[in-house]
Amino acid sequence: MSGALVGVDLGGTLIRAAVATGATTHGPLVRHPTPATGGPEAVLDAVAAAVREATGGETPGGVAIGIPGPLDPATGMVYTAPNLAGWHDVAAGGMLRERVGSDIAVQNDARLAGFAEWTAGAGRGTRHFIFMTASTGIGGGLVIGGELHAGTAGTAGELGHMIADPNGPGCTQGHRGCLEGIASGTGMVHRARLLLEGGATSSLSAVPADGLDARAIEDHANAGDALARQLFDDAGRALGLAIGGLINELSPEVVAIGGGLSQAGDLLFAPLLAAVPDMAFAVPLSRCRIVPAQLGTDAGMVGAIAWAGRCFGPPPTAASPP
Amino acid sequence: MSGALVGVDLGGTLIRAAVATGATTHGPLVRHPTPATGGPEAVLDAVAAAVREATGGETPGGVAIGIPGPLDPATGMVYTAPNLAGWHDVAAGGMLRERVGSDIAVQNDARLAGFAEWTAGAGRGTRHFIFMTASTGIGGGLVIGGELHAGTAGTAGELGHMIADPNGPGCTQGHRGCLEGIASGTGMVHRARLLLEGGATSSLSAVPADGLDARAIEDHANAGDALARQLFDDAGRALGLAIGGLINELSPEVVAIGGGLSQAGDLLFAPLLAAVPDMAFAVPLSRCRIVPAQLGTDAGMVGAIAWAGRCFGPPPTAASPP
Repeated sequence: MSGALVGVDLGGTLIRAAVATGATTHGPLVRHPTPATGGPEAVLDAVAAAVREATGGETPGGVAIGIPGPLDPATGMVYTAPNLAGWHDVAAGGMLRERVGSDIAVQNDARLAGFAEWTAGAGRGTRHFIFMTASTGIGGGLVIGGELHAGTAGTAGELGHMIADPNGPGCTQGHRGCLEGIASGTGMVHRARLLLEGGATSSLSAVPADGLDARAIEDHANAGDALARQLFDDAGRALGLAIGGLINELSPEVVAIGGGLSQAGDLLFAPLLAAVPDMAFAVPLSRCRIVPAQLGTDAGMVGAIAWAGRCFGPPPTAASPP
Repeated sequence: MSGALVGVDLGGTLIRAAVATGATTHGPLVRHPTPATGGPEAVLDAVAAAVREATGGETPGGVAIGIPGPLDPATGMVYTAPNLAGWHDVAAGGMLRERVGSDIAVQNDARLAGFAEWTAGAGRGTRHFIFMTASTGIGGGLVIGGELHAGTAGTAGELGHMIADPNGPGCTQGHRGCLEGIASGTGMVHRARLLLEGGATSSLSAVPADGLDARAIEDHANAGDALARQLFDDAGRALGLAIGGLINELSPEVVAIGGGLSQAGDLLFAPLLAAVPDMAFAVPLSRCRIVPAQLGTDAGMVGAIAWAGRCFGPPPTAASPP
């Protein structure tokens, strides 16, 4: 290994970079604001600067970067990144290689969070693992047969865009009735607004429009508001039925649920866990655990570090498991 | 290889067995009625007799058998087989080994049909492949990374039991709103009965109760009956939305649709193909082909032969691809 391995977590507001110190551990985090409106060149310039700062100016042995959008890891092509202006068909792998001088592994951020949970969190030690993240949107990552599954286009693991209710609301991507439309933070807020505009009685009607987010709905649900509780019941049930179907399809050993919404605890997990057996068969359900994710907001960074090791590090040995 | 490889297709009414003559070809079919009401011992006695007849009495080098129910290929345990009386937690692999004297590979019948399509049909040459079969029920098989995916419990590939419409009818397994409830032959007939009982106008009302099956609905749809067409439209759309979600999740190179319903052609495929883009993202959809399966009712037998070769045959070489 000729240089340090570096992990980068590229978010819509923050770039984080660090040098790997072990399979899933890293040195101090370098943090820079993301020039999200500056276009791909400006964003990748800032990423390259963060990488150089993390390595102390040395050329790294390899960089793995998580990017918030659909992309093809095999080619480094980012199809789109909704939170970054002008990112359409950006050859991010090649562009970053020119700037940094080392090989680059481009991955989707939710897939890296899933890889982190599989390597060092809720899915550790399994061969078949599903990670689902529910926050503003719904995403995920699949480990199948001990490999992070990318599929033919490289985009596999998009778990938010399957049917939940043909008569349900649309998601921001225009898929009417999909899971994200009912069970994401954005979807819950959208539904809350519609219900309040329709005259529903709820303590949420006192919340200013710009303060109505998933956290507010959680707070009001915990305070006993019936409409806020219903929104969590509906989201949890939709997630549970979707997960039941995924268990029938893939028979994973563990399904881990992360993201901001999962922080609501029983408010989300109780209806979720109650709904799973309405769709999943007794076997494989009896061979599957459904658990909260363990790594929280660290998952993206841990995943980037672990992915850098997987792509550019020495092969794992029996004495030093990944 | 010390003896012939044998494939067996165990159906609810017929046992078929044959000796492999190539990777996907076989000798003359031995056919025996399935003693479906006789319990597992009687059925496996009949299977063993069919195997002996296929080999001319010699001990085979290995037997692969497709069984219509959820099972674990790793242990040979059949959890249940709805069309065979008394099949609950049957150690079919071990019981058949005692009778035949060779190693036995137990697999689900729909999984073997999918393996056949991947080896010699619509999925040939792909690494990531989805096979879905729609007939009386809905089943399937997944090839991921060039391997037939079994999952932790061995049951993966059950594609009929995911949510299609929370307000939709239940399937015969009690999953309210699942795909099988609306898009299987059984589900379509059930919906037709409910609609006719509710007073719907349709030429199907002239069909005797015991003649109302998916084929009758197909015939009446082709003759222009609006209700029959609506049933196919609804089934096709539900299948298309489900397949769109699967493409987002797994990014397969090919999705092949087989089973009796797929024989209805455009009646099913037109609404199906129209619905897929309502859920699938442009990429990975642009990298995926959705096609009819190619092997028809031969798929189960071809799959059993191919699976026997995979489990007990010589490793494939560059000169003789599987």
